[in-house]
Amino acid sequence: MLRWLLAVVGNPAIEFALWNGERIASPGVQPQIRVRIADRGTLLGIVGDPQIRFGDAYSAGRIEIEGDLVEFLCVMYRAAQRGGAAGTMARRIARWAHRPRRNSLAGSRDNIHHHYDIGNEFYALWLGETMAYTCAYYPTAAASLEQAQTAKMDHVCRKMRLQAGDSVVEAGCGWGSLALHMASRYGVRVRAFNISKEQLAFARERAQRLGLQGQVEFVEDDYRNVSGQYDAFVSVGMLEHVGRDHYAELGRVVRRSLGSNGRGLIHSIGRNRPAPLHPWIERRIFPGAYAPTLGEMMQIFEPSHLSVLDVENIRLHYALTLRHWLQNYEARLAEVRGRFDETFVRMWRLYLAGSIAAFETGTLQLFQVTFATRENNDIPLTRDHLYSD
Amino acid sequence: MLRWLLAVVGNPAIEFALWNGERIASPGVQPQIRVRIADRGTLLGIVGDPQIRFGDAYSAGRIEIEGDLVEFLCVMYRAAQRGGAAGTMARRIARWAHRPRRNSLAGSRDNIHHHYDIGNEFYALWLGETMAYTCAYYPTAAASLEQAQTAKMDHVCRKMRLQAGDSVVEAGCGWGSLALHMASRYGVRVRAFNISKEQLAFARERAQRLGLQGQVEFVEDDYRNVSGQYDAFVSVGMLEHVGRDHYAELGRVVRRSLGSNGRGLIHSIGRNRPAPLHPWIERRIFPGAYAPTLGEMMQIFEPSHLSVLDVENIRLHYALTLRHWLQNYEARLAEVRGRFDETFVRMWRLYLAGSIAAFETGTLQLFQVTFATRENNDIPLTRDHLYSD
Repeated sequence: MLRWLLAVVGNPAIEFALWNGERIASPGVQPQIRVRIADRGTLLGIVGDPQIRFGDAYSAGRIEIEGDLVEFLCVMYRAAQRGGAAGTMARRIARWAHRPRRNSLAGSRDNIHHHYDIGNEFYALWLGETMAYTCAYYPTAAASLEQAQTAKMDHVCRKMRLQAGDSVVEAGCGWGSLALHMASRYGVRVRAFNISKEQLAFARERAQRLGLQGQVEFVEDDYRNVSGQYDAFVSVGMLEHVGRDHYAELGRVVRRSLGSNGRGLIHSIGRNRPAPLHPWIERRIFPGAYAPTLGEMMQIFEPSHLSVLDVENIRLHYALTLRHWLQNYEARLAEVRGRFDETFVRMWRLYLAGSIAAFETGTLQLFQVTFATRENNDIPLTRDHLYSD
Repeated sequence: MLRWLLAVVGNPAIEFALWNGERIASPGVQPQIRVRIADRGTLLGIVGDPQIRFGDAYSAGRIEIEGDLVEFLCVMYRAAQRGGAAGTMARRIARWAHRPRRNSLAGSRDNIHHHYDIGNEFYALWLGETMAYTCAYYPTAAASLEQAQTAKMDHVCRKMRLQAGDSVVEAGCGWGSLALHMASRYGVRVRAFNISKEQLAFARERAQRLGLQGQVEFVEDDYRNVSGQYDAFVSVGMLEHVGRDHYAELGRVVRRSLGSNGRGLIHSIGRNRPAPLHPWIERRIFPGAYAPTLGEMMQIFEPSHLSVLDVENIRLHYALTLRHWLQNYEARLAEVRGRFDETFVRMWRLYLAGSIAAFETGTLQLFQVTFATRENNDIPLTRDHLYSD
């Protein structure tokens, strides 16, 4: 079975080491990565339900990867893309066995709580000082995480052409980094919505510390309850939690929040083709999450007559961002272990490494969509302004 | 009825002058534009079927616009956007009374022949020396038509990151300007497809004159018959003639034409929301044509696992391009009259002026979509290369 699996994925430099000492490798290839499987039950579990059981077995320490974990996961993602018998089976299992949790008002609270309320101090260990938990923008691949997160915020603000005195509404503000950046660097007023209590407490304290509490209001409420009119609407990394059934509703919220010269930006993980999120990620990490195609995202804009001005796919930037996060995570492992058990530690490592592999292989995309109301003719002729000082 | 119409469109500075000397204007507004209606039959015809009959009556000289024709059409487009009773009725008539002609292999030949084979000399009068019959790219609003058409071709080539020695296939090459530009400026080999005999004859002669016939092959065939593998796939202004039913098929053609590091660009007139082309334009000017939304365009890319890297909406550039075309057209009117009757002359003026109004009011969009095969990781980290020398 393992020999067949190796052949299906193109006989990579991978060796399986079984509980009984047996080794199975691609014929004539020097193994670079060793996959240790602790017992027969683990192996059979993976055969039956690979997408969920591989992650769980890895988290439980029943599977060990010796060598480059990201590289191993890239090989697996590329194999799944090529399809064939193994890929098809895996995709079928994922599709039929698993439906994402619902994102009703109450469901969203539960789903968001699951991921974002596990402790600000934990995230602070590896997100870096910006506490931005979304794809950064690397002016060059050598930029630091902090430089790239700041560049991302500036890139977003420039795409929206923020001017001092503008009012901005933000849907899903995380720990508040973008809201505070917009206020301090661009002189705009911001109302920022979030339903994670832990994140909001942190964001409010930050605003106080920076003396920006008069300019930035953090609101504990769902994006569906956004009220008022603004010059711009921005949402970075929230759409993944909205759910496809709610895109048209989100579009109506955007439309009613904007005056006739309104514009905005939505930044989201995406896909080339419709597919559910990896079921292990959806179950263990991000309940209710979904990564839309660009076509699916258009269900936000089209029904509300919003005009898409610019789409940029920056998936390679997310691979770089996640590499920085994983590096920080491994550097702060002792502190992580002080807070969580080993299963959590390994689960989180697999999530970060698997995400690098997903963006690097093009299994996931990252779309920044800039838009305006249809009647807004105050739109720039070219994108030169994004690339000059 | 005309008073009601003026009220519905917001009482603009328009006056109707009827055959019996009667004048109807918005109350308390000094008219800037006068609409002369020659007889009762013309007025009643427009009431019954405004979308077709207005254009036909204008072409026949039964309606005359004194004042700015483009401005008049902008007022009308904005009114249709705002909807209300008049807009809804007009849209319903358009949708139910009219279906675009089909784009089978034979249907496409007829449809393309109708528009593109009316005489190269006619197009040469007003398209300018590039003979590019698609939206230009204005580095600044003051650029000339020739500068903007050349800048458009460079913008497209840079988006595809053409390198000397690359092979490119072009679907729908018009009079050959882009194919010849790619070959002469970027050192690539091009196979360019077109089903308009007149355009191809012109393009081949141009290639001879430039000594590029060894580097550029002009093929008289449908895009569906593209064969071979190339480094890049480009199509500028052909998608409008493909028809929605054929998008997935076009995607399969793109995919099979590209190797694993393949990339490409599709440039098309588009819309914010799905809607048929203006029925008068579809009937009199562009049979079989359709302007898709960005969401509809994704039916090219998604089924074939193509990855969208960049979308730029340059609708304001098409308003500028069309203004230059209309200006040239009016300047060469004596020569146009030497070839065609007055109905054609007026029909063509209305088509150009109406298109300016459509792009200026956001009724139409212009999307440039850059894409790559999903496995292509040789994609630029940023778009800086488009904006630096």
